[in-house]
Amino acid sequence: MNLQPIEWRDDKLFLLDQRLLPEAVSFLECRTAEETALAIESLAVRGAPAIGIAAAYGVVLASVQGATAASRAICRLSGTRPTAVNLFWALRRMETALNLFSSMNTESPLSSFLLEEAVAIHREDIEINRAIGRHGQSLLPESSTILTHCNAGALATGGYGTALGIVRAAREAGKNIRVIADETRPVLQGARLTAWELNRDGFDVTLICDSMAGPAMAKFEVDAVITGADRVAANGDTANKIGTCSLAVLAAFHGIPFYIAAPISTLDLSTARGEDIPIEERPAAEVLAFQGKRSAPEGIKAWNPAFDVTPSRLITAFVTERGVVRPPFGENLRRMLV
Amino acid sequence: MNLQPIEWRDDKLFLLDQRLLPEAVSFLECRTAEETALAIESLAVRGAPAIGIAAAYGVVLASVQGATAASRAICRLSGTRPTAVNLFWALRRMETALNLFSSMNTESPLSSFLLEEAVAIHREDIEINRAIGRHGQSLLPESSTILTHCNAGALATGGYGTALGIVRAAREAGKNIRVIADETRPVLQGARLTAWELNRDGFDVTLICDSMAGPAMAKFEVDAVITGADRVAANGDTANKIGTCSLAVLAAFHGIPFYIAAPISTLDLSTARGEDIPIEERPAAEVLAFQGKRSAPEGIKAWNPAFDVTPSRLITAFVTERGVVRPPFGENLRRMLV
Repeated sequence: MNLQPIEWRDDKLFLLDQRLLPEAVSFLECRTAEETALAIESLAVRGAPAIGIAAAYGVVLASVQGATAASRAICRLSGTRPTAVNLFWALRRMETALNLFSSMNTESPLSSFLLEEAVAIHREDIEINRAIGRHGQSLLPESSTILTHCNAGALATGGYGTALGIVRAAREAGKNIRVIADETRPVLQGARLTAWELNRDGFDVTLICDSMAGPAMAKFEVDAVITGADRVAANGDTANKIGTCSLAVLAAFHGIPFYIAAPISTLDLSTARGEDIPIEERPAAEVLAFQGKRSAPEGIKAWNPAFDVTPSRLITAFVTERGVVRPPFGENLRRMLV
Repeated sequence: MNLQPIEWRDDKLFLLDQRLLPEAVSFLECRTAEETALAIESLAVRGAPAIGIAAAYGVVLASVQGATAASRAICRLSGTRPTAVNLFWALRRMETALNLFSSMNTESPLSSFLLEEAVAIHREDIEINRAIGRHGQSLLPESSTILTHCNAGALATGGYGTALGIVRAAREAGKNIRVIADETRPVLQGARLTAWELNRDGFDVTLICDSMAGPAMAKFEVDAVITGADRVAANGDTANKIGTCSLAVLAAFHGIPFYIAAPISTLDLSTARGEDIPIEERPAAEVLAFQGKRSAPEGIKAWNPAFDVTPSRLITAFVTERGVVRPPFGENLRRMLV
């Protein structure tokens, strides 16, 4: 049974609470846009496509109280997390729908109209993931070992996944796939989410600490490193979970292809280069502790950037729903949008 | 007051129990060689020079029961951990002393004779650390930011430290020093030990997750990466805590010097190249959890190499008690030994 991390039911939004995985499979009920915003901020839902979808439903929740409330919700939800551009892309679609409704002469309620758009964003995301999977799996040998970071799986999207969508599509195509998963400190999305999601679906998955990725590339004869993305600048520089850039450097050192799997909605042509992407810094407490158990002494400073930027020259190709994009990225990514 | 992680008192060995730091400062009492071996295996004492010193005292503990017991202790202690060559170097010194005693006609007990050798190994290690510090600090600018990994500090040695010995010596020379410490999963020696030790001594230390090291090199304008070593092969390839090789690759990518600080006893001319160094693999449980708090779901495989090997071409220089060694390492390391 396919994993459904985001569900709309009985006029409410249900989010698989990713803070509790793998210990508990529990859904968080959001009845308001504010509850949805808090769920995004606290990482109950995370992953660039998933937070876009959740935010879209959050606008629907507010719209029961009218257009002004919906508009305020768009503003509030835009302020939850700064790096993933899919969030802003989804909220722009909701804003466009809101404006369209205002200009229409219709009997149906605003919330039903906006729900249609949110459901479309959600459904399209799963279709996009499947297309990314099809294009991406064609890059992999019959028997492949894939190294991935963080969680770019069903849990990070509407379902199926981007990087893990490629892993799923490769198995559906009859390929023999093994996955090496970085644990992904500090929030441990690799250990808690990717390992859980892949194990649930019967994949061969081996967990490593982030610092083991280089040696693992040699030891397990990794065929490709595949990650998701939170924002791709116009020149191909890519923001993704902290640790991604190091993987790209190590993949180049080991002569292994490094792929970014992401929907076109992750591409932000209005951001020229990686250094222009805003990088969220999260609380030091995440670094000073491990799963709530303190690991560092009192009085220690910590730095906790949630993302880093991989320079485009370290990226072998992007895998999008419209196909595989190779360098020169400035030109070829732009062409994807027309 | 200087940190004394290893103490001989009342005919017993006291080890600052590094498993309990930073929450508790507690000494583990070892009355037998077996207790000492278990302390090494369980990481109550760790760090290449420190386990050599502890093992030497472990032989003294056994020698109260005679030469055969001392000889058996040397064998048992040799089997505790495979990678750090200082362990074998210290045990060889104890074996030489044991053989020398057998050939002597003396009234004094064997244990007193062996204790003198163990104390010499311990005292010399601190002197060696200070010499490493003096040579190493000369490489650093007046105002320096140093990135380090794991713990190559007072806790890893007889006191003072190798990599952190350089940090201490730089401050003693009046330099302005800031340290970025990798937390060093899975056992978190950076978070638990390096941050604790440096904070205790009033250093400016910032903790990061291992995956943040590359971005931190740019963000904090790191002047040098300095780590310790567990074994240096004849060609300069160096085994050290897992994650070290990635740091060396990242330092090269960022154009930052990468130094290994280690005593001459870490050099193993009988091992030609890095691929000949035995790498200890520790229990998967260390990767699947931290301090008993599980992070991965049940049924997940993990790979847990405790060390990796940095190819000599990625190393800028070795800092030893006899001076700074630059390439070609095959030739210049050999010259250090004569």
